[in-house]
Amino acid sequence: MGARDAAPAAATPEAVLAFGRQILACQPFSQLLGAELTQLTAEGACELRLPLRPALTQQYGFAHGGVVSYMADNALTYAGAVALRVPVITSEFKINYLRPAVGEGLIARSSCIHAGRSQAVTRCDVFAVQDGVEKLCATAQGTINVLPAPKA
Amino acid sequence: MGARDAAPAAATPEAVLAFGRQILACQPFSQLLGAELTQLTAEGACELRLPLRPALTQQYGFAHGGVVSYMADNALTYAGAVALRVPVITSEFKINYLRPAVGEGLIARSSCIHAGRSQAVTRCDVFAVQDGVEKLCATAQGTINVLPAPKA
Amino acid sequence: MGARDAAPAAATPEAVLAFGRQILACQPFSQLLGAELTQLTAEGACELRLPLRPALTQQYGFAHGGVVSYMADNALTYAGAVALRVPVITSEFKINYLRPAVGEGLIARSSCIHAGRSQAVTRCDVFAVQDGVEKLCATAQGTINVLPAPKA
Amino acid sequence: MGARDAAPAAATPEAVLAFGRQILACQPFSQLLGAELTQLTAEGACELRLPLRPALTQQYGFAHGGVVSYMADNALTYAGAVALRVPVITSEFKINYLRPAVGEGLIARSSCIHAGRSQAVTRCDVFAVQDGVEKLCATAQGTINVLPAPKA
Repeated sequence: MGARDAAPAAATPEAVLAFGRQILACQPFSQLLGAELTQLTAEGACELRLPLRPALTQQYGFAHGGVVSYMADNALTYAGAVALRVPVITSEFKINYLRPAVGEGLIARSSCIHAGRSQAVTRCDVFAVQDGVEKLCATAQGTINVLPAPKA
Repeated sequence: MGARDAAPAAATPEAVLAFGRQILACQPFSQLLGAELTQLTAEGACELRLPLRPALTQQYGFAHGGVVSYMADNALTYAGAVALRVPVITSEFKINYLRPAVGEGLIARSSCIHAGRSQAVTRCDVFAVQDGVEKLCATAQGTINVLPAPKA
Repeated sequence: MGARDAAPAAATPEAVLAFGRQILACQPFSQLLGAELTQLTAEGACELRLPLRPALTQQYGFAHGGVVSYMADNALTYAGAVALRVPVITSEFKINYLRPAVGEGLIARSSCIHAGRSQAVTRCDVFAVQDGVEKLCATAQGTINVLPAPKA
Repeated sequence: MGARDAAPAAATPEAVLAFGRQILACQPFSQLLGAELTQLTAEGACELRLPLRPALTQQYGFAHGGVVSYMADNALTYAGAVALRVPVITSEFKINYLRPAVGEGLIARSSCIHAGRSQAVTRCDVFAVQDGVEKLCATAQGTINVLPAPKA
């Protein structure tokens, strides 16, 4: 995602979640897809949800891989942004698709594995929810970088 | 993407491209984004294009990382699908973001590095086109698997 | 690593660990490095240990990245081999280096995230042990494939 | 590998290669394996060679995956180190194994895809040489970071 806005350093849980939701509301692509941020903590735990609808599928009715990777990309970045507490940019990630993503919605849950001075490494599981049952459908690992200061 | 339909084994270049476009037309998510398949060869060379519009951006006006990863995911899968010539499923990929994706459109160009009996490894560069000038904004590498036969 | 020998299907914990140790003993490179398999369960939990010595370092006295990636590669493969219970081959993996690997030894702990019909996805954390204290120094995620049957 | 020593900024091709060889000579693990640096250019092209011997194999006589990943790790880092021209550290990489690595030696060829202010993205192909014929046996992509300045 990239977030020039830093996460609030000493903030209530409500303020951290509100900060995250404000960013999501400013991402037209997240609005097009219909993503909702349902958890975000100062430690880097993030939960992002997405109701599935036909427009988000591929030719067999599963959620498109690009939708699943959007969920991973965004949740990985949130986890790094709150852990680093400075403006960040997503450097890279890797995703394994485990099962077809079918059902009424997707849930991405991410956490921060390690936050250093210049980058954080984060992990994300993406679940498909069908008839209320969650099944792991993808897992991802990525690197979130501190955004370099602009040249003087 | 996943493609239960096999790429035509001995096909004219026109037939291979037509096969690819038919699959893209059947992907509602690709239609929602507006992707166009502009090249697909039996050897696994693929070019996918996407006009950028505000709905595809994040909070700073760049194409959202999820849009860039959609381009990589789809182009990597096409390259593997035509090289393997059997129904395929995307196993995994890794993407590095190199530059903000800004401009009038994105182009993903992929190719097949190696096709074995059970999987292909493919590579993809994603370019942002601004004022007609292409700049590399992401690079990806992935694994496309032969779809296992259904259980008897 | 690649393991044409299948893990025993219904085996005691002791038999699974003995199976794993037998494979490690047959890997000259693992013997050159000095790796020891200290845990292996039928569910895919694996622990591999390596005493550090000067010959395994790079120019600053840290364990060489290639040593850390050896630990991840081998532990990821073990986790997939026991979970799939058939001969396997490592398809790919991704590793993030988090901290310099310094101390008296390395410990790689891996587990199986998902095992399907044709592949398993596994995860591995590598810890450096210094003065008895473990610190996470790398984390990896990989894909282990069922070895295709030889052509008739 | 990690290289606190910066590559010489305006150097003859011979000086760049000599710089690289000096680093390799200071890596005990590279000496244990027997790696040789046969090319290194200021633009980030690198060639690393390794004669194969039984001690570097796994249980089927192929070069161990950890040997192949060592070659990729080291060559990816060299490509980034010379392109960035400052002290670097390897952040992460991903490797796909394509074929068993058999023969008399391995050759890793890497190049720099993109070098920015804080990191470089590099790519590496690893070939196995058997009876003088090179076959691609692995391909990798990684991120090399500028080493942050020490805290004041």
